[in-house]
Amino acid sequence: MPNTTDRAQLPTSHIPLPTWATGLCLVAALLLTAAPAASAQSLADTYRPAAQRIIQRAQADSSAWNTLAELTDRFGHRLSGSESLENAIDWILAEMKKDGFDAVRGEPVMVPHWVRGNESLELIAPRPARLPMLGLGMSVGTPPEGITADVIVVSSFEELEARSSELAGKIVLYDAPFNGYGQTVAYRTQGASRAARHGAVAALVRSIASESMASPHTGTMTYDSTIARIPTAAITVEDAMMLHRMQERGSPIRVTLKMEATTLPDARSRNVVAEIRGTERPDEVVVLGGHIDSWDVGQGAMDDGGGCVAAWEALRLIRELGLKPRRTIRVVFWTNEENGTRGGTGYLDAHRDRVDQHILALESDNGAFRPRGFGFTGSDKALAIIAEIGSLLEPIGADSVSRGGGGADIGPLMEQGVPGMSPRVDGERYFWYHHSHADTMDKLDPAHMQQLAAAMAVMVYAVADMPQPLPR
Amino acid sequence: MPNTTDRAQLPTSHIPLPTWATGLCLVAALLLTAAPAASAQSLADTYRPAAQRIIQRAQADSSAWNTLAELTDRFGHRLSGSESLENAIDWILAEMKKDGFDAVRGEPVMVPHWVRGNESLELIAPRPARLPMLGLGMSVGTPPEGITADVIVVSSFEELEARSSELAGKIVLYDAPFNGYGQTVAYRTQGASRAARHGAVAALVRSIASESMASPHTGTMTYDSTIARIPTAAITVEDAMMLHRMQERGSPIRVTLKMEATTLPDARSRNVVAEIRGTERPDEVVVLGGHIDSWDVGQGAMDDGGGCVAAWEALRLIRELGLKPRRTIRVVFWTNEENGTRGGTGYLDAHRDRVDQHILALESDNGAFRPRGFGFTGSDKALAIIAEIGSLLEPIGADSVSRGGGGADIGPLMEQGVPGMSPRVDGERYFWYHHSHADTMDKLDPAHMQQLAAAMAVMVYAVADMPQPLPR
Repeated sequence: MPNTTDRAQLPTSHIPLPTWATGLCLVAALLLTAAPAASAQSLADTYRPAAQRIIQRAQADSSAWNTLAELTDRFGHRLSGSESLENAIDWILAEMKKDGFDAVRGEPVMVPHWVRGNESLELIAPRPARLPMLGLGMSVGTPPEGITADVIVVSSFEELEARSSELAGKIVLYDAPFNGYGQTVAYRTQGASRAARHGAVAALVRSIASESMASPHTGTMTYDSTIARIPTAAITVEDAMMLHRMQERGSPIRVTLKMEATTLPDARSRNVVAEIRGTERPDEVVVLGGHIDSWDVGQGAMDDGGGCVAAWEALRLIRELGLKPRRTIRVVFWTNEENGTRGGTGYLDAHRDRVDQHILALESDNGAFRPRGFGFTGSDKALAIIAEIGSLLEPIGADSVSRGGGGADIGPLMEQGVPGMSPRVDGERYFWYHHSHADTMDKLDPAHMQQLAAAMAVMVYAVADMPQPLPR
Repeated sequence: MPNTTDRAQLPTSHIPLPTWATGLCLVAALLLTAAPAASAQSLADTYRPAAQRIIQRAQADSSAWNTLAELTDRFGHRLSGSESLENAIDWILAEMKKDGFDAVRGEPVMVPHWVRGNESLELIAPRPARLPMLGLGMSVGTPPEGITADVIVVSSFEELEARSSELAGKIVLYDAPFNGYGQTVAYRTQGASRAARHGAVAALVRSIASESMASPHTGTMTYDSTIARIPTAAITVEDAMMLHRMQERGSPIRVTLKMEATTLPDARSRNVVAEIRGTERPDEVVVLGGHIDSWDVGQGAMDDGGGCVAAWEALRLIRELGLKPRRTIRVVFWTNEENGTRGGTGYLDAHRDRVDQHILALESDNGAFRPRGFGFTGSDKALAIIAEIGSLLEPIGADSVSRGGGGADIGPLMEQGVPGMSPRVDGERYFWYHHSHADTMDKLDPAHMQQLAAAMAVMVYAVADMPQPLPR
């Protein structure tokens, strides 16, 4: 398949041609006139006017922020299985219909239904204190009277193994300093089973956060099916460090952990879908979106209401500017990213027979912060095209395109060979707020959300409209 | 009284003198040899060796941070009237005796005894949610069933007055953006009575904080004695902004506020005092310290355990180096700064007959962060001396001395004419943590605490030792 460079070098009509060929050229020329991309222009030149219009219109208001504020203020956080998630989805579908998009619908998905219930952590020794905590998603609960036990603090799995003989009947606290999410999150996801293997009765984890103001950060965890399931919760960075200091001073540490957490039967949810139907190749689809579920804390504004609404705003911008792409642009708000990824797998299941017609999948789940460009996962030829389109975002400083991009919800599509990508944003504060009570509207900037929407709109419009599909 | 410049210009013995005068000079010369400051050297030159030794020794370990961690981890926060405050004071007195200071003692002070009790704020409409809150110090409580009422959000006292006819039976929320502590704190201190004047039944205030991660910030408030006392509490910055947005969208807002807060009879507390007794003028005193009480949240590490322990460390440094000042250096940890300032007034009451012998009062209550210098309140001549001594702190970047300094606890002394001063520190994050659960040990840096201790030690040692008292 030709890439943009090939197309830029298509022969023009300076060479003498036979009459039938001239006629063909005439037809072709007419087609070329009607189709903005199909000239001798580079892809960037072709889509520059549309990109400029998108950027200009995006920057003229704050509708993405306002929409997200209304959504998150009205419905709050949106954990899978909760009424607030389904109410939020109903509202979004109604608003999207008002926006005049095509094929607005909720595609059914069954999701895990974990419920936190009441929970508490009391420090008994060396001194009484109530420690703020958040049970980890999918954790089992404690007996109603709680679990009271001594605490052993470790800094790492290595230290856990070194002290394995001491852990029976104890509560393990992992006090691992934040060392990047990918590194540190293992204590949250695997800590319970790793401790239970040695007889621990519960596991606590220092919140996975790059800055803390006494707020615990939840997140999902998984049990090793061969090991007893023990309750597990996050405490604040501050308290983890304090308990560690107490241990270093030789103070015995004792706590009571109470958690009502339980997992109910799977619940009905939906992936939210809305489209601008393609004019020429409607069955070929460019997908963009985020996940509409959140943890049951804060407002789920940054993670990932903002990603959803930026995609929604991108679709609005394209529609309101009267841009009519050759292919279909489909916004999807996946459900259940946080504790199951059933939205992502459900989407693939529902569209499996058309996965080859998925040209590109773009997911925004790094926070709706100021965009700097995109990460892309696909072929070199496709990367060159994406980079060329990305160059159109230079006016808003979002033109940096590099390898590496994707998202949990588009992962199943990408495994089937669909090129995947995600915005790169100014994410310095992402792990300040992530999965905590502080993931709220005020952390997002209206202008940055509009820039993110513009960046996504330019990218998906050009990919959906260019004459040749993005090569795999 | 001569200032340092005068002393540097004292006549030396080049001028012929009568025999009696020569004898006098000889006696004076002998005295001068024994007294480090009394040469023709500048004050800075005189005290440079001691300053260098103090700075060097301070930077050799982390004992201030370690002491503060032990104090705050063992006893937690320390509200006036609480057992933890008095237990902390007992421990400090015992440790100070071990340190070998002179005249270690607790000077009795009766303090207000406000108790928070259980408290909660439930959002009822437009949607149910539990809002994190902290009752304001000295607030009255609610009836046991709480106060349920509609909320009116205002941005300022001006807006309050403009809407005064709507406030009867309502709960007022002040959503005033942080505009410097001095400006914004009026909503916390005066908000209840200002709202009650127009019939409001409770007052909520956006936390006085320059950055928020969903943590409420408490602090003291006062009632106008002519107006009905209504309960008042702080909510998070995030929630204040959210409720304001809800009001702007026309959503009726309704909450239930429950507070058990009550004020018990005054309780016994103590100002902590320890000294290095002066060798020549022991009745002349240089005072330094901080306040040992805190709000009943976090650890009271920054506010103001750190100020206390930095002063304590300063005294340790002077003692351990064998420096023996002419005047007495007295560390005071005032009690009850937060909700009564009874420690500061009690100190003056106890020492009123010796207030003229208080040469200088230095209070560290701006957070034990990296020191940059001092603010000073006193005469021009005294300021020049303080600035010259301050220049000795150039090696640790703490040599900036300027007008304006003091503290709540030394305020009563300063009103009696005692020169007052306070460290200037890197306080950018002070109002991130102030009066919140996030005022914990991890926010302080061991090296910066040692620098602060060194800066205070150099300043008080030189002022206590110089031949002439600091002029008023």
